[in-house]
Amino acid sequence: MTQHRIAVIPGDGIGREVVPAGLEALEATASRFGLGLEFDTFDFASAEYWQRHGTMLPSDWEETLRGYDAIYFGAVGWPEVVPDHVSLWGSLLQFRRTFDQYVNLRPCRLLPGVRGPLAGREPGDIDFIVVRENTEGEYSSIGGRIFEGTERETVLQETVMTRVGVDRVLRFAYEQAARRPKNHLTSATKSNGISITMPYWDERVAAMQGQFPGVRVDKFHIDALVANFVLHPDWFDVVVASNLFGDILSDLGPACTGTLGLAPSANINPERDHPSLFEPVHGSAPDIAGRGIANPVGQIWCGSMMLDHLGHPEAAAHLLGAIEDVLAYGPTEAPLTPDLQGKGTTAELGQAIADRV
Amino acid sequence: MTQHRIAVIPGDGIGREVVPAGLEALEATASRFGLGLEFDTFDFASAEYWQRHGTMLPSDWEETLRGYDAIYFGAVGWPEVVPDHVSLWGSLLQFRRTFDQYVNLRPCRLLPGVRGPLAGREPGDIDFIVVRENTEGEYSSIGGRIFEGTERETVLQETVMTRVGVDRVLRFAYEQAARRPKNHLTSATKSNGISITMPYWDERVAAMQGQFPGVRVDKFHIDALVANFVLHPDWFDVVVASNLFGDILSDLGPACTGTLGLAPSANINPERDHPSLFEPVHGSAPDIAGRGIANPVGQIWCGSMMLDHLGHPEAAAHLLGAIEDVLAYGPTEAPLTPDLQGKGTTAELGQAIADRV
Ligand SMILES: CC(C)[C@H](C(=O)O)[C@@H](O)C(=O)O
Ligand SMILES: CC(C)[C@H](C(=O)O)[C@@H](O)C(=O)O
Repeated sequence: MTQHRIAVIPGDGIGREVVPAGLEALEATASRFGLGLEFDTFDFASAEYWQRHGTMLPSDWEETLRGYDAIYFGAVGWPEVVPDHVSLWGSLLQFRRTFDQYVNLRPCRLLPGVRGPLAGREPGDIDFIVVRENTEGEYSSIGGRIFEGTERETVLQETVMTRVGVDRVLRFAYEQAARRPKNHLTSATKSNGISITMPYWDERVAAMQGQFPGVRVDKFHIDALVANFVLHPDWFDVVVASNLFGDILSDLGPACTGTLGLAPSANINPERDHPSLFEPVHGSAPDIAGRGIANPVGQIWCGSMMLDHLGHPEAAAHLLGAIEDVLAYGPTEAPLTPDLQGKGTTAELGQAIADRV
Repeated sequence: MTQHRIAVIPGDGIGREVVPAGLEALEATASRFGLGLEFDTFDFASAEYWQRHGTMLPSDWEETLRGYDAIYFGAVGWPEVVPDHVSLWGSLLQFRRTFDQYVNLRPCRLLPGVRGPLAGREPGDIDFIVVRENTEGEYSSIGGRIFEGTERETVLQETVMTRVGVDRVLRFAYEQAARRPKNHLTSATKSNGISITMPYWDERVAAMQGQFPGVRVDKFHIDALVANFVLHPDWFDVVVASNLFGDILSDLGPACTGTLGLAPSANINPERDHPSLFEPVHGSAPDIAGRGIANPVGQIWCGSMMLDHLGHPEAAAHLLGAIEDVLAYGPTEAPLTPDLQGKGTTAELGQAIADRV
């Protein structure tokens, strides 16, 4: 029996509520498919840890996590206790960078039984993935303030793109597009306004095109692209974007399918030199935390992406199928959570999915 | 009779088709309200000018335009002839910066007779404005490339925020919010990820709050905000954003109301030290240019914003009313363009609105 060691980090807010539901579904799947999953839970990367230690992570976090095959992550952020840019840069964004998880992969699709905000769209109409660059670009911590507290106060922040960093995520995206049935890659740019880094991004997209003759490539400026996500979500197959644009698109996409509270994301190191990290797109949601009503589907769907990454595509597909089945029952037949017009709790919906597995 | 001198710059593509329709509607309004409008048309800021001169603008453009009370602008950009970042930085983005048009104002609202992509929304449900910073931020041209053509190739671009630049646009937005019935200001941020400039933006928003005790202020990270534009467009009243975020939001907003081809924008220098510039949100649209079917409503609506800025709010409201009336007739009664399910041409729709005035 293959044995996988998984580091579990519930984090903050509803992260702590949905992670147990996610683990239950993973355990059910593992026992059905005869997989050995071993879970170790950590309390760092949370506001509580910050309150006790004044840092988000212990100094040996890197050695600790390095030995695991994957990280199963809830959500981090609790602005009442620690400002978001401190908690995020002190944990999640650290993990992405230190473990070189340079691809952030986020599927967007209309699910059966989930009501989206767009008129006249049916499951099957919308089914694309966003491939986000996850380690450089606009999320650099280079910069600072000068003339502080005066009228001349000026604040600078550098966007950094490297050939290595841009090319590797583009390659991953091209490969995804080559593998999927539509063979269509869309690049997010803003080369008409962001006139130094974005024309470079466009050049690298064009430079790689010859290596993937079967892939149809187009590009949109980010302003036109967000508009098209709303107006023509059926146009897209694989969308590749810089760190910031990918962040924006991978929230907008699930919003358009009504699955913002249900969408998963994978922070992947494709070379497997480091553990990859799986976390739902939703955050710690302080507004509903503590009430036991958070939707656990995103966290459970993350488990499916993690199984796929660990080399168990069948188990992954089975778990995703169980989610879809339970959603398709609808709020009268299944204990769906309030965001899905149901009356179920996090635990009840998690249990229903685990049972279905 | 007050006399206003207007510089007219049709630019590229459909800009040349919608500007004449816009002028006709303006002339009809001027004659009805006894306003003296004098128009001078310029051929620069276009790909054709670039082909003849190798620059987008004549060297004396600044003196030429400085004497006008406003600039009535079509659209610029024709990537087959000149790369977008060259044409835009060589014209429109120059105007914004040189004439210190530091506010870009874009109304988003559901109009009668216009079908939007969101399910179950009615005119009145969505009615907000985006106030975009228009001179600094992410649109800086500071940066460059090093180690070109090698594996170490690295590209940097600086985001620049100044206290003066941030505070003046925030003040304008607070004042708008104070004046509108809902007194609600939403700030777009990303301080959890863009960890130097965006926390600064948040600080300045908070620092000004005390001066506007009647205004309710909230903020969203840009990823959550784009999602909320789709999910809860009724939440917003005045949305203030940095240059890039404002660009994204002011395309997404009109997309959500189905008015992307109809929305106007005003590039304003509130102190009136320099001419302000009025241009539709849509671009030069090479895909439909030359066919005479572009929707002129955005350009005509720009005329209304321009009249308001020139101190004629009644004439402005009358012109906007004429637009709304003609749209409300619907495609069977009025010569609406194909984007509005009609069979009208640009000229016919423009004529119908001018007649209605
Ligand atoms: C054409 C482009 C440079 C411009 C911008 O990004 O400012 C446009 O999208 C706009 O919003 O006016
Ligand atoms: C919390 C935040 C820093 C993070 C990001 O912007 O990357 C989140 O929005 C995400 O998409 O994972």
